[in-house]
Amino acid sequence: MGLLDEIMDLHRGGKLETALKNPILNKEDLARVYTPGVARVCQEIAGRKERAYELTTKKNTVAVVSDGTAVLGLGDIGPEAAMPVMEGKAALFKQFADVDAVPICLDTQDTEEIISIVKALAPTFGGINLEDISAPRCFEIESRLRAELDIPVFHDDQHGTAIVVLAGLLNALKVCGKSIGQVKIVVNGMGAAGLSVAKMLLKAGAANLIGVDRIGALTRSASYANAHWNDFALVSNPYLEEGKLSDVIVDADVFVGVSGPNVLTVHDLQRMAHDPIVFAMANPIPEIDPDLAAPYVRVMATGRSDYPNQINNVLCFPGIFRGALDCGATDINEEMKLAAAEAISSVIPTADLHEQYIIPDAFDPRVVESVRAAVAGAAVRTGALRGASAVSAK
Amino acid sequence: MGLLDEIMDLHRGGKLETALKNPILNKEDLARVYTPGVARVCQEIAGRKERAYELTTKKNTVAVVSDGTAVLGLGDIGPEAAMPVMEGKAALFKQFADVDAVPICLDTQDTEEIISIVKALAPTFGGINLEDISAPRCFEIESRLRAELDIPVFHDDQHGTAIVVLAGLLNALKVCGKSIGQVKIVVNGMGAAGLSVAKMLLKAGAANLIGVDRIGALTRSASYANAHWNDFALVSNPYLEEGKLSDVIVDADVFVGVSGPNVLTVHDLQRMAHDPIVFAMANPIPEIDPDLAAPYVRVMATGRSDYPNQINNVLCFPGIFRGALDCGATDINEEMKLAAAEAISSVIPTADLHEQYIIPDAFDPRVVESVRAAVAGAAVRTGALRGASAVSAK
Repeated sequence: MGLLDEIMDLHRGGKLETALKNPILNKEDLARVYTPGVARVCQEIAGRKERAYELTTKKNTVAVVSDGTAVLGLGDIGPEAAMPVMEGKAALFKQFADVDAVPICLDTQDTEEIISIVKALAPTFGGINLEDISAPRCFEIESRLRAELDIPVFHDDQHGTAIVVLAGLLNALKVCGKSIGQVKIVVNGMGAAGLSVAKMLLKAGAANLIGVDRIGALTRSASYANAHWNDFALVSNPYLEEGKLSDVIVDADVFVGVSGPNVLTVHDLQRMAHDPIVFAMANPIPEIDPDLAAPYVRVMATGRSDYPNQINNVLCFPGIFRGALDCGATDINEEMKLAAAEAISSVIPTADLHEQYIIPDAFDPRVVESVRAAVAGAAVRTGALRGASAVSAK
Repeated sequence: MGLLDEIMDLHRGGKLETALKNPILNKEDLARVYTPGVARVCQEIAGRKERAYELTTKKNTVAVVSDGTAVLGLGDIGPEAAMPVMEGKAALFKQFADVDAVPICLDTQDTEEIISIVKALAPTFGGINLEDISAPRCFEIESRLRAELDIPVFHDDQHGTAIVVLAGLLNALKVCGKSIGQVKIVVNGMGAAGLSVAKMLLKAGAANLIGVDRIGALTRSASYANAHWNDFALVSNPYLEEGKLSDVIVDADVFVGVSGPNVLTVHDLQRMAHDPIVFAMANPIPEIDPDLAAPYVRVMATGRSDYPNQINNVLCFPGIFRGALDCGATDINEEMKLAAAEAISSVIPTADLHEQYIIPDAFDPRVVESVRAAVAGAAVRTGALRGASAVSAK
């Protein structure tokens, strides 16, 4: 059987099913988990709504919500075709962090409708993982839902990638003996993921960071149709560098690509600072072929599992929701995201770090626990927790 | 530990969880069920949408949707408090018919919003089970969704009850040697369930059936604010009987109560025809105490598990969705509902029928298989099936 047949076979009938925590084998079981017994449980929650976290699946259940508009590299393939990805995501939530997740693929691309649907679904779920929703709608949808819901909302394509990139970069910088506040960083690709990566690096202390898209380096001396670019230009590119990628790459210590295949050349690498760090995350074809780049870079990371240093979101989202659900977080705020990144990087002891090992393996069992604890700690520190007042205010 | 503690304990953390059909234990597994392997599966479905039935969880997954407005006898307790019932329902779907069901409790009571949310959710699911939505909104929501979606939509509170009542009545009539076309039937309580029961009995051949509510017998000589009552009066009460329940009960062969506690008296029973059949389904307190009624009735059924002949929806909804999903039905139409009722009643061989045994036990393993086969057969007969044209028309 070929690999494709094997993959199709594994998907037949879907990848998930429902399981009962307790079987219903006789009238006594039925009377306890359904009528008439269940009525008392309903009344408890009707009297005090936050008891839903204790007496229903809410506390451990996350909705994985997509409209199918930006699925993997495939683009707008529709809600039905997006399902295998959302099921896969839900499967990873369960396998890595024992989070129960429900794939929800929506047959609408209307921003306001998606917002109101997810708000209406919220009583059922303890958190919302947005997935594969195209920019710029994903920004509005995420920020409105974060503001209007009292459960954590997280757009993994933006923040999951950003968190794992930061985790890897912190370790890559250690390997090179550089510090984030002193390096020049070029982020290529200013879509949803690229913007989120760039903002996270700024929050982590990057001082000289330049965002580049097809039109060249973003700078505050220009004005863009994309409001997110204008906002971003105000806080980045301090020396107002202009030009194409091949211009601003000169003397850069770090290249982070969230763009497309083969946009970075060996000539570019040759003009970077000493000990260049290259994160080429376009998938499946990176911004530069890792084998081609090898002689010219000190540390290289990609999104691929067949090269060292894979930047894989699965290092982040299971633990981040595990932590948020466990501590009763009402949000996944910037401090929690930074804490997650630091937790991922700190899984590898400094003594063990080297050029081919800056990020833990996706199956390293220490990762989820480390992220969970760090995220919960940050939630407590920042007060992003369910409390009597927050619940009664709802 | 008392019963209430036991019930609370069984509900802690909820009654359901997600399970993986195949574990994800290493990079090879990850590459098959998630990126990059999953992309090929997405592309297959993007190219031919109906492959979602084969390559995702859609075919075996039903959404159990409620807005929490008419939960059990508790009324409008809200979406959070409705969750234990919807989880229980989902658990029964799995236990009895291996249907994967997802509880979805919505934070809106707006008819149009509920309709558009369920339509947007439809790509994810193979069927929609509406639950505990108050009348009259439940009628509009169900009929619109049946018309506008190409997956089966079923409001269990209406039709599940109607199907099981008909199943029981068919056998009760056999026990009494009477036939449905010749008996006088009084249905008391003209809410969503009562109307649905009455209409189902008419469809099954009842000729002399009178609907009664608090204002008395419905008749086409009167005019009602409730449009559903006017429609119903046109097809029922052929002899234009008027008056209260205690008036029209005279000479009735069958009383079906979907109303409230203790509205039927021994005096009423004494004036019914010989061998009276009484279905007193108000829960937890029936229309007449079964012990009080015993000397005066030939066959008695209730909604309670502690008396013989329990009219329990669990006899219907698992098998009806099992059948609809298995055959690729696009609807659960009247023929399929009638077939389900006949299938339930036929589980008990005529020779085994007696006054205390007109309906199979909820745990009788023959029930689901019998309903499944009958429902699928009726779907095929009536052409309510997914086909190339139906799919491409979407």
